[in-house]
Amino acid sequence: MPKISKKGAEMPASPIRKLVPFADAAKQRGIKVFHLNIGQPDVETPKNALDAVKNNNLKVIEYSHSAGNLSYRKKLAEYYKSVGIDLTPDEIIITCGGSEAILFAFNSCLNPDDEVIIPEPFYANYNGFAISCGVKVKPIVSTIKNGFALPEIEEFEKIITPKTKAIMICNPNNPTGYLYSKEEIEKLGHLAEKYDLFLFADEVYREFCYDGEKHYSVMELKHIDQHVVLLDSVSKRYSACGVRVGAFISKNKEVMDTAMKFAQARLSPPSYGQILGEAACDTPKSYFDEVVADYIARRDCVVEAINKMPGCFCPNPKGAFYAVASLPIDDADNFCQWLLESFNHKGKTVMLAPVTGFYSYPAPVKNEVRISYVLNVNDLKEAMECLAEAVRVYPGRTS
Amino acid sequence: MPKISKKGAEMPASPIRKLVPFADAAKQRGIKVFHLNIGQPDVETPKNALDAVKNNNLKVIEYSHSAGNLSYRKKLAEYYKSVGIDLTPDEIIITCGGSEAILFAFNSCLNPDDEVIIPEPFYANYNGFAISCGVKVKPIVSTIKNGFALPEIEEFEKIITPKTKAIMICNPNNPTGYLYSKEEIEKLGHLAEKYDLFLFADEVYREFCYDGEKHYSVMELKHIDQHVVLLDSVSKRYSACGVRVGAFISKNKEVMDTAMKFAQARLSPPSYGQILGEAACDTPKSYFDEVVADYIARRDCVVEAINKMPGCFCPNPKGAFYAVASLPIDDADNFCQWLLESFNHKGKTVMLAPVTGFYSYPAPVKNEVRISYVLNVNDLKEAMECLAEAVRVYPGRTS
Repeated sequence: MPKISKKGAEMPASPIRKLVPFADAAKQRGIKVFHLNIGQPDVETPKNALDAVKNNNLKVIEYSHSAGNLSYRKKLAEYYKSVGIDLTPDEIIITCGGSEAILFAFNSCLNPDDEVIIPEPFYANYNGFAISCGVKVKPIVSTIKNGFALPEIEEFEKIITPKTKAIMICNPNNPTGYLYSKEEIEKLGHLAEKYDLFLFADEVYREFCYDGEKHYSVMELKHIDQHVVLLDSVSKRYSACGVRVGAFISKNKEVMDTAMKFAQARLSPPSYGQILGEAACDTPKSYFDEVVADYIARRDCVVEAINKMPGCFCPNPKGAFYAVASLPIDDADNFCQWLLESFNHKGKTVMLAPVTGFYSYPAPVKNEVRISYVLNVNDLKEAMECLAEAVRVYPGRTS
Repeated sequence: MPKISKKGAEMPASPIRKLVPFADAAKQRGIKVFHLNIGQPDVETPKNALDAVKNNNLKVIEYSHSAGNLSYRKKLAEYYKSVGIDLTPDEIIITCGGSEAILFAFNSCLNPDDEVIIPEPFYANYNGFAISCGVKVKPIVSTIKNGFALPEIEEFEKIITPKTKAIMICNPNNPTGYLYSKEEIEKLGHLAEKYDLFLFADEVYREFCYDGEKHYSVMELKHIDQHVVLLDSVSKRYSACGVRVGAFISKNKEVMDTAMKFAQARLSPPSYGQILGEAACDTPKSYFDEVVADYIARRDCVVEAINKMPGCFCPNPKGAFYAVASLPIDDADNFCQWLLESFNHKGKTVMLAPVTGFYSYPAPVKNEVRISYVLNVNDLKEAMECLAEAVRVYPGRTS
């Protein structure tokens, strides 16, 4: 029997996925599980966008242009203008989710064994895409002590090698919720310029910034625009994760021409998703105002509750809908499994994501969990009550 | 400015795409261009499938299961049963088009620099996917003289090396329209077994077999089912190329587990496309009967016309909706460009695909074109009239 590939063997299995059977078993025992483990918001997709798909009158669902429908790219250029980013339709390739945009970035810009520096903890699937493309992730640790701020420039410089071709960030960050400041983005720009690196930024949570903070995009680094690639998606912005529509964006024509060849090989991005994405560009500001107000209330509920739990700490994230908390526990993987397997509080428990899955292997920290605050405040309150009790009685408690 | 990657530089630009500006210019000069260059059928997508999307009442377009909705995979298992292939839902991963299924196959089964043998001419994008994944395509020439039948087993054995990990076929074939016989498929099975190779089969044109010929699937090679990966798509079957829904199928559990890790990294296949695909499984047989009858009439129109043109030869393909013809011309790339740039017959011309793009580089033959018979018979007749005249007056005519 022929053997599977080495990269197939190396591909990490998600630590969250490993927990799914335990969650299923808990539910079968009649236990209510609060799902704080995934980035699937409960927010409704804007109705005008859903209706655009329902009202379409296409008779043949044809391939679209490999870069996506021109009408959609024109509309997207308007959307970007509204958030302070000047783009022409030619500087946008519509992708199958943000995921494909990451693949295009790695494949277009990095050779096998080239290195991309990513502050960790980072979105777990970056690792998987790197393995797919044969490139290496070089993690640089950001710590919970300062709320996961950008590591010092000197720390970056220590790990830059001749193989380093890019720095990648997620802003606002998944899993930490950290929002990079203008100064931090500018520091990254200087690094990219000084060492002739690409700067990839995953900005899919752009709309979710709190407490009056403004999102500063890598696209605003105009003096190094030839280094910058923006990775985007409609998934989180319009709570439409399933449509699989994202975007690969750059002002570097050679990079765009190259990514376009990868785009042509896979023919086209999903047609229905593009219809939804194009209509979603007209979503009124009030939709986001409501969603952001909701997320702030949810975040406050979670962060305040955790910081009241003895031995627990959760920085106050300024963006996205995630928070990372450190808990007085021996091992987050064990704890998250125990929550589902051996614990309940009044017939309820919580499912969390161990942050180990968001660090490189072996994880430098073991006692952090990611909480996605994607449920309503009442559910979150109950979930926090469960978590407080769980931390109190967990056999692997460390303090 | 940082440099693009080597694989980005190696990615082939499609010879068809190069012709697009010439086609656009011809249209601007008022010339009618018959598009026989693409695999985009004019056939309508089944109405029940379109309606399923229009009538959906989802409020949130969520991620689906990474392997695709279970309800769809169950329905697909029934579809496969109807074509003589026994599968469980666990043996199916829904992909973003057949394209992603090819990427999963290469990434899951081949290491960088491993070789996959593919009879050429072959679907041009196999090259692009191979470059994306760092694997090497080893072409083996099939020739127009015997209608592009499978090369002799000895020819395969001559090019098998320790790096050879797989054989890949497209059946019925794009670009040749060739339908492999049961005996040919069995020969490939023996090779896979003898040399411990994977056998990948792209069977997206399964429904399009003519003259009473039966499609014989690699999945029917039960004794070597651990070697076999089936790559499929709804694009051609239901004329729904834009929905981006395909399938990666195998009875080899290790291969499925591995592909599943790549599937999880990209989260999920498109939700709307899955709704369409699931509904399309109920498409009545009459739909295919009509479509197949149409394609036979179209094929007959094209093949008969070409074989009447002096110096031209077109084998009679038994499947798909493509035919490859050899013409008395110096160079198909030049000819196809000339058709758009310098020729018209009564204000009309044809756009064809030079077969050079379907061979490895440099192409071993220069005088073949691929004709997609995706237009109605009246248009095809006019197009053939243009082609006959063009071949007669082309300055690079060789005989």
